[in-house]
Amino acid sequence: MTPRIVDLRRGILEKNDVLAQSLRLQFSEAGVRVSNWVSSPGTGKTALLEALLSQAIENGTRAAALVGDCATDNDAQRLARSGAAVRQIVTESMCHLEGDMIAAHLDGWDLNDLDLLVIENVGNLVCPTAYDLGEDTRVALLSVTEGEDKPAKYPQLFHSADVIVITKTDIAAAVEWDREAALAAIHAVNPTAPVVETSSRTREGVSELLNTLLTPSRQLQEAP
Amino acid sequence: MTPRIVDLRRGILEKNDVLAQSLRLQFSEAGVRVSNWVSSPGTGKTALLEALLSQAIENGTRAAALVGDCATDNDAQRLARSGAAVRQIVTESMCHLEGDMIAAHLDGWDLNDLDLLVIENVGNLVCPTAYDLGEDTRVALLSVTEGEDKPAKYPQLFHSADVIVITKTDIAAAVEWDREAALAAIHAVNPTAPVVETSSRTREGVSELLNTLLTPSRQLQEAP
Repeated sequence: MTPRIVDLRRGILEKNDVLAQSLRLQFSEAGVRVSNWVSSPGTGKTALLEALLSQAIENGTRAAALVGDCATDNDAQRLARSGAAVRQIVTESMCHLEGDMIAAHLDGWDLNDLDLLVIENVGNLVCPTAYDLGEDTRVALLSVTEGEDKPAKYPQLFHSADVIVITKTDIAAAVEWDREAALAAIHAVNPTAPVVETSSRTREGVSELLNTLLTPSRQLQEAP
Repeated sequence: MTPRIVDLRRGILEKNDVLAQSLRLQFSEAGVRVSNWVSSPGTGKTALLEALLSQAIENGTRAAALVGDCATDNDAQRLARSGAAVRQIVTESMCHLEGDMIAAHLDGWDLNDLDLLVIENVGNLVCPTAYDLGEDTRVALLSVTEGEDKPAKYPQLFHSADVIVITKTDIAAAVEWDREAALAAIHAVNPTAPVVETSSRTREGVSELLNTLLTPSRQLQEAP
């Protein structure tokens, strides 16, 4: 990138950081736990989020979701079946979400009425990493159908994650998933984040993930 | 994006387009067929490319590959096993390849010694779409483990592709892949590009893909 682009990009990131801090303060004051889900397209974020929101509603947890996509509101339609409040953010050619999109899409929601807000980022392992959305928990997801070395190839994301989620464990055997290799690759870039293994089909790990997202990150890192 | 960013981005794209046209001319004069492979991380580009390069070498096709990744040279090491010439392009925080990276990494290779050059882009369905690399064939890949509606959600990539490849067909049943829904989604955004269904495990479709990449795109679009 040219120096002018680097300077401008730095300016955008700084402006985003200021807005994200203001969002973080609002979330904290309202007592809502906010997570930002980042993964490749096809990792199964939406299917897992659907299972998680259904579980949350069953438990009496007041949950909502903002879902980012370049086009279509397919995901919001799927997620609305859970009974949670859901809004789509259509980004067109934008490859990540930014703080101002979150702020704009919260309009009309009373954060005091929520316990949990999940932000599903655009499917992309690179670009969303630089943009703070005011979340308390950044979640990086990896499916058993992806290479076990993804954390080594995309270290910025996996290093910056507070929670790492493995998806589609129900087909692990069919795709010859090497669980130990994947855990080693995760721990090499992020030794402290909890790893939650999930299947949206069997619901394995869904309750555990929900509890994890409702627990302040500092406690997660301090857990034995 | 701010107007200044839009202007600067347009300038970068125009500069890239000029360089890409110069690369395209070099490739054409040397008689080398060049494809640019774009997909999510985890779609299985590298495994398929390994099978394709092995097949090419067996056939006596002179093949080489440039592979982009944010970090690690894992992919180049895997691909070198095929016997083809392979170079890694490490992009660090860059989420796509640009023409100047291709030009720099061709240094020392005689294009007249090649029949086929495959460029494996960084795993990303959004950002690589805007950057022409001088290829004659843009390949968009989609695995059976991803949602069948990916072409609708990332229309820019699938619309701009010359060839669309479905990967991991060997596990289609295990993941309940809806082939008809996927083909309908592909045809809705791109009615003319050939669709090649592949498995790097069983080698289904590998020879067909190799033939497709060695055929000029204009003939592909004109095929009955």
